[in-house]
Amino acid sequence: MNNLAMSESARPLLDKVIKHIRENCDPALAEYERLGEGRAERFSYAPGQLEILEDLKNKARAAGLWNFFLPNAETGEGLSNLDYAYIAFELGKNPLAAQSLNCAAPDTGNMEVLERVGTPEQKETWLKPLLRGEIRSAFAMTEPDVASSDARNIGTRAILENGEWVINGEKYYISGAGDPRCKIMIVMVKTSPDAEPFRQQSQILVPIDTPGVEIVGPMEVFGHDHAPHGHMQIRFTDVRVPEENILWGEGRGFEISQLRLGPGRIHHCMRSIGAAEKALDLMIHRGLTREAFGKKIIDLGKNMETISRSRIEIDAMRMIVLKAAKAMDVLGNKEARIWVSKAKAMVPEKCCKIIDDAMQVHGATGMSQWSELPEMYIKQRTLRFADGPDEVHHNVIARAERRDFETSNDRQAVVRAALGRDRR
Amino acid sequence: MNNLAMSESARPLLDKVIKHIRENCDPALAEYERLGEGRAERFSYAPGQLEILEDLKNKARAAGLWNFFLPNAETGEGLSNLDYAYIAFELGKNPLAAQSLNCAAPDTGNMEVLERVGTPEQKETWLKPLLRGEIRSAFAMTEPDVASSDARNIGTRAILENGEWVINGEKYYISGAGDPRCKIMIVMVKTSPDAEPFRQQSQILVPIDTPGVEIVGPMEVFGHDHAPHGHMQIRFTDVRVPEENILWGEGRGFEISQLRLGPGRIHHCMRSIGAAEKALDLMIHRGLTREAFGKKIIDLGKNMETISRSRIEIDAMRMIVLKAAKAMDVLGNKEARIWVSKAKAMVPEKCCKIIDDAMQVHGATGMSQWSELPEMYIKQRTLRFADGPDEVHHNVIARAERRDFETSNDRQAVVRAALGRDRR
Amino acid sequence: MNNLAMSESARPLLDKVIKHIRENCDPALAEYERLGEGRAERFSYAPGQLEILEDLKNKARAAGLWNFFLPNAETGEGLSNLDYAYIAFELGKNPLAAQSLNCAAPDTGNMEVLERVGTPEQKETWLKPLLRGEIRSAFAMTEPDVASSDARNIGTRAILENGEWVINGEKYYISGAGDPRCKIMIVMVKTSPDAEPFRQQSQILVPIDTPGVEIVGPMEVFGHDHAPHGHMQIRFTDVRVPEENILWGEGRGFEISQLRLGPGRIHHCMRSIGAAEKALDLMIHRGLTREAFGKKIIDLGKNMETISRSRIEIDAMRMIVLKAAKAMDVLGNKEARIWVSKAKAMVPEKCCKIIDDAMQVHGATGMSQWSELPEMYIKQRTLRFADGPDEVHHNVIARAERRDFETSNDRQAVVRAALGRDRR
Amino acid sequence: MNNLAMSESARPLLDKVIKHIRENCDPALAEYERLGEGRAERFSYAPGQLEILEDLKNKARAAGLWNFFLPNAETGEGLSNLDYAYIAFELGKNPLAAQSLNCAAPDTGNMEVLERVGTPEQKETWLKPLLRGEIRSAFAMTEPDVASSDARNIGTRAILENGEWVINGEKYYISGAGDPRCKIMIVMVKTSPDAEPFRQQSQILVPIDTPGVEIVGPMEVFGHDHAPHGHMQIRFTDVRVPEENILWGEGRGFEISQLRLGPGRIHHCMRSIGAAEKALDLMIHRGLTREAFGKKIIDLGKNMETISRSRIEIDAMRMIVLKAAKAMDVLGNKEARIWVSKAKAMVPEKCCKIIDDAMQVHGATGMSQWSELPEMYIKQRTLRFADGPDEVHHNVIARAERRDFETSNDRQAVVRAALGRDRR
Repeated sequence: MNNLAMSESARPLLDKVIKHIRENCDPALAEYERLGEGRAERFSYAPGQLEILEDLKNKARAAGLWNFFLPNAETGEGLSNLDYAYIAFELGKNPLAAQSLNCAAPDTGNMEVLERVGTPEQKETWLKPLLRGEIRSAFAMTEPDVASSDARNIGTRAILENGEWVINGEKYYISGAGDPRCKIMIVMVKTSPDAEPFRQQSQILVPIDTPGVEIVGPMEVFGHDHAPHGHMQIRFTDVRVPEENILWGEGRGFEISQLRLGPGRIHHCMRSIGAAEKALDLMIHRGLTREAFGKKIIDLGKNMETISRSRIEIDAMRMIVLKAAKAMDVLGNKEARIWVSKAKAMVPEKCCKIIDDAMQVHGATGMSQWSELPEMYIKQRTLRFADGPDEVHHNVIARAERRDFETSNDRQAVVRAALGRDRR
Repeated sequence: MNNLAMSESARPLLDKVIKHIRENCDPALAEYERLGEGRAERFSYAPGQLEILEDLKNKARAAGLWNFFLPNAETGEGLSNLDYAYIAFELGKNPLAAQSLNCAAPDTGNMEVLERVGTPEQKETWLKPLLRGEIRSAFAMTEPDVASSDARNIGTRAILENGEWVINGEKYYISGAGDPRCKIMIVMVKTSPDAEPFRQQSQILVPIDTPGVEIVGPMEVFGHDHAPHGHMQIRFTDVRVPEENILWGEGRGFEISQLRLGPGRIHHCMRSIGAAEKALDLMIHRGLTREAFGKKIIDLGKNMETISRSRIEIDAMRMIVLKAAKAMDVLGNKEARIWVSKAKAMVPEKCCKIIDDAMQVHGATGMSQWSELPEMYIKQRTLRFADGPDEVHHNVIARAERRDFETSNDRQAVVRAALGRDRR
Repeated sequence: MNNLAMSESARPLLDKVIKHIRENCDPALAEYERLGEGRAERFSYAPGQLEILEDLKNKARAAGLWNFFLPNAETGEGLSNLDYAYIAFELGKNPLAAQSLNCAAPDTGNMEVLERVGTPEQKETWLKPLLRGEIRSAFAMTEPDVASSDARNIGTRAILENGEWVINGEKYYISGAGDPRCKIMIVMVKTSPDAEPFRQQSQILVPIDTPGVEIVGPMEVFGHDHAPHGHMQIRFTDVRVPEENILWGEGRGFEISQLRLGPGRIHHCMRSIGAAEKALDLMIHRGLTREAFGKKIIDLGKNMETISRSRIEIDAMRMIVLKAAKAMDVLGNKEARIWVSKAKAMVPEKCCKIIDDAMQVHGATGMSQWSELPEMYIKQRTLRFADGPDEVHHNVIARAERRDFETSNDRQAVVRAALGRDRR
Repeated sequence: MNNLAMSESARPLLDKVIKHIRENCDPALAEYERLGEGRAERFSYAPGQLEILEDLKNKARAAGLWNFFLPNAETGEGLSNLDYAYIAFELGKNPLAAQSLNCAAPDTGNMEVLERVGTPEQKETWLKPLLRGEIRSAFAMTEPDVASSDARNIGTRAILENGEWVINGEKYYISGAGDPRCKIMIVMVKTSPDAEPFRQQSQILVPIDTPGVEIVGPMEVFGHDHAPHGHMQIRFTDVRVPEENILWGEGRGFEISQLRLGPGRIHHCMRSIGAAEKALDLMIHRGLTREAFGKKIIDLGKNMETISRSRIEIDAMRMIVLKAAKAMDVLGNKEARIWVSKAKAMVPEKCCKIIDDAMQVHGATGMSQWSELPEMYIKQRTLRFADGPDEVHHNVIARAERRDFETSNDRQAVVRAALGRDRR
């Protein structure tokens, strides 16, 4: 569990990924962003944008850098979660990088679910084009009217009628559903309200163009619509899909969520490490290139200590994320979930702090469109809710810790020894 | 200094202001915002918007609620800074309220400067229409190419040629300069590069339509352009204004800044208290109206303690702001500046924390366009740079503290007594 | 409520108190401490120590500086809580000062209780010698076997038999009970186990030499026994006192606690402000008098910002404490308890931080016997438990805040306006 | 560098160490402490105490658990730093454990120095009895009159006269010098005031019974003298030792310090992890065994989240410490020093927080002599100064980070890409 070194075989891949980002993605970014600026038609691509993306994807695929995220897959392309983590760290440094390797959210989680529990037909129809990077996908779970952090609150209903699931309800913050390339959604629904609490939910495949699916509009984060990706509000009104669109069987929705917990949650955290590294680099760079009161800004007040504290926290986060990846490799997703929760509860919160500190060193420019820092901050702030708010993960960890204490002879022996002093 | 109670005479005004906000501003807000949504032509008002604003201004003026911010003014309308603080707390709860009373930034600071150091002609031409709420104004100080927190870095040059100031340079984050009603700017320039460091700067009145003034575009904050108000990037190329447009005389730019320090900085902090109160109310409301894991969210985990800590910090901030206001009343703006720096260094940082905590209680909705919290957060985050970053204010405070210690017999006596123990 | 200025009449008293501390207490401290060092017989005074204390008391009494803590008392000596706060700030700077003015804990709380609810006989026997500073007292509430933060957990039993209360149980952390001058305890007991939860407790006067009272030994704080004052562990075995020793009547123990909440809790916080000021002065002094890496330590890294942050927090705490004092003056102890809880939850925690920062600036000497900082830290750390742990006070505050929100039309109107945006 | 797993060969040793602590050290602790209580003759052992220690040492040695700390030593007993770290974690859970394995500070650092730079005679005379656990030692560096965090400030002088070093000066906080078994000190002195700044210092072996060595008394930490170990104040007056007592040669004192940086600093941090684990266990245990307001304390307020946060931080610290140990194994002590500084700057500060949180859950008992928590807190608080205050380590880290940025093409490329957006 504590051997967190990258495998020898993956090392050259990492080098190639870094080379790909530096040589292909970095130069393409400014142009890609410039093309997308100020578009009135929000959820579409400007002429030229998709070409840039396809070009990057072609280059990556040609270099053998494709679908790394899928561990131990029969496709043969996957790396271990641990090896992938090292690569994902780098992907976090350029907003186009993950997609260029077909390793972008939420497709990765969806592909993994399909690969594990999909029927041959489901794989043929949806997994294959996803693996080829031809279409994109969404995962529809969160609802506006209830606290979705408690899965039992899910209210969207699916009722089986004449061999079809009829779905009614409303979802929001459905990331990626704004992309014109998004063709398929996995929708969390309540199918079995009379079953025990965690057997009431199912997950169903719903093509996005199914009648009754209404994309109401984008949900914003801090005023951003993140077009064309988008976090969409979606209404389901008598949406009908074939019975066989259910994944893994009725009542297994919560089980699938557990299964996807690992990768879906941890890939974000992996890339967050790269974002934090970048924020630190921006902080140092700004501190070295501006002067005030006769000194470089980096040499003023607490700035050097802030750099040190950021460095330490980044290193600590990196190790926790590697450990969570290793746990998934060694223990499986379910047993690894405590480690995943540790990463998830730790990383976005600390990244917000580091990026915020970097902003402060930048002065007003740090909040402006001339800097990536605001987008990076918003991304990390968002992650403190996505895939479960911090509080839910802390609860998972604390309950596991409590249970571990209650069942560990050694831990209780330590306490007994410490309490050995007689009270008078 | 410690009598922070509102004066009896101001109390009815406060009641009228609250009534005005509840009855006039609150109902108008949703419609005002709806009209402004999604406009392509950013720096203009939608049909109907200005009418709403003028209607609110007329109602306020008719009720005698006008220009409160101007203390001890010959106009006779001003309140003491202390009394105004109580009113400004309330203004912070509705984004339209301050403007409806002609108490909005940056006009308030500009009007105060004109009232104190303006010539009769300058007052006639610019102060009067500002006091009547007919035009708006901007203050152009910050520059993109230098750390403007150190005023000596200011690089925009003004050279006197043939009875005209010729101005060249670039400013950014000039708030309010996007508003079509903005007619006049006070521009901080370097006029006297050979004078001693704090006598090199001057402030000059520049009508915004002067040839050579180029509004390059809006600077964003976290991706917002805050249209139509705007934080503009402005280029000055051979901009010529008459010699008499200088304020108070050549080389007094830094002095004017000191003078405006108080009100300009503290009015924001006053309104921030209202914003923090509102964030706390939103936090409680959300906590009471959502359930998860079988409980109201307010009763989960640390939420009650978060509410308590927010309450305590708001009360503490409120007292510090009142104290700074009182200091300005009693000691004058210059002597009060340590208290102003205390408020400025304390309030926006703590407000960010409170608003962020409120977001976390809201879940994803707390980041969305359905909530005011993201805008409130961005506003407070911005204030950690505006009018001097936190670090500059902490430095002002620490240097004053150090000086006070070095010159206080009593403080040194306390230390001597504490060090009285003999070393062996 | 917001006039927090000292009354004109009290100002000369404050000046006299400061003079008394500087001229009498400060010079006496080193000798007093030296005499007490390394005594084997812990809970007694060394020859000369009591003489120093009595001399200070005589000087204070002669100067009219006596029993200030007792507000609006028939004795005529008391100040308002607000005026007293200003004096108590100064008392916090010298460990002998409070006692020299007969204003030391826990006597102040006990005297106030006796003055308010004592019978004429109880006053004659116990209050008078306490007011004259002839004896000292203790308040026995906390128990080792239960979470005493919940008063309902109190387990010490008192049963009425033949006109006598028979007391059995165990208390700990009974501060001051180690002092040989301590003659009387107020003991919180359970008298009425069948009454409703908050009517089961009573408070009874128990002379410390009553048979059956066993002082088991001192409880330590961070290894200190604080002799001769002491925080004693006390066992009550068939302790019998006359029926009339009960205070205010059976079942009113919780009520008395509420009544004493204010002064007992807030006096500590007042003195904590003085302690924090002293810590800041020590921090600045050390920073100015040591050098490393070619600079004064005060000019290294974040030290100046630490000074500024300490200054701001001290000012904020001071205002909250003044406000709590004023609330007791204006609203009475019961209604003021939210403000008292705010002070109590805020002050010791923040003081710990300030003192800890001061230590860090001192290097190893800051932890040593050459510095008062460790004792000051321990004192403040202890206060985070005494009279209710932080958590209990935060809960009081949050529940009040929640109730206030639920019953305030204006607060709810603010929320309604903020939520005015239509969801799609 | 990222393979942090324990070696297979060391695993059985770890199991034996745990068994030894549980079966031998844990049962002995209470008796050992009881014997030492309340002794007037502070710096000596009570009858029976040394017998307990010797018995534990004999048992450990018999089980082959001895001198693990010395990596790659010719003695053949040493483990890698990484393997030793796992063992040291466990040693941190019982105050007798490290000494029982002859792995206690400051002997470990001193033995490592002697082993690396000692002459054959020095090894024979001092290293061998130390390795056999027959004597103990001290390291005298810190001085009361200067900021010793800057090694150039060292003022104790050694002058060579007639083949003898004559030493004059004063040291304090010389840990272990109070132990009657302490026979030898390594003393940092200034020998060459005219050399360049970091070649002025030397380290000299001084037997503690050399004439002129005056042990003035113990320095306390938070009022504890930590007898009989002690942190002594020592005066050197014309202390004469033979010329050959110098270590490694004149002017190499700073170099030796660098060399000992690693082990000396990191062993403490390793044991701190064990202490933090123990604090967490005590926190959970208390939370499970007390009730208030109708619930187990662990289920009140933020306590579960505190447990989770403690768990995460402990795991993060553990990984950083393992990484620092591995860096010493792989890179050598000198190159590993950035990692050592990371551990040193991170661990004690975070441990203080965890222990403090554990105290708060305990209520008053958490500060008392019935709990180990206060001693654990003081120990960790002390470590924030020992072997360099936090600030010095943050500075080491930040300077390395800055240098790394300035010399890394890849890091600068990331910044260039992020700054690719054109300014208008």
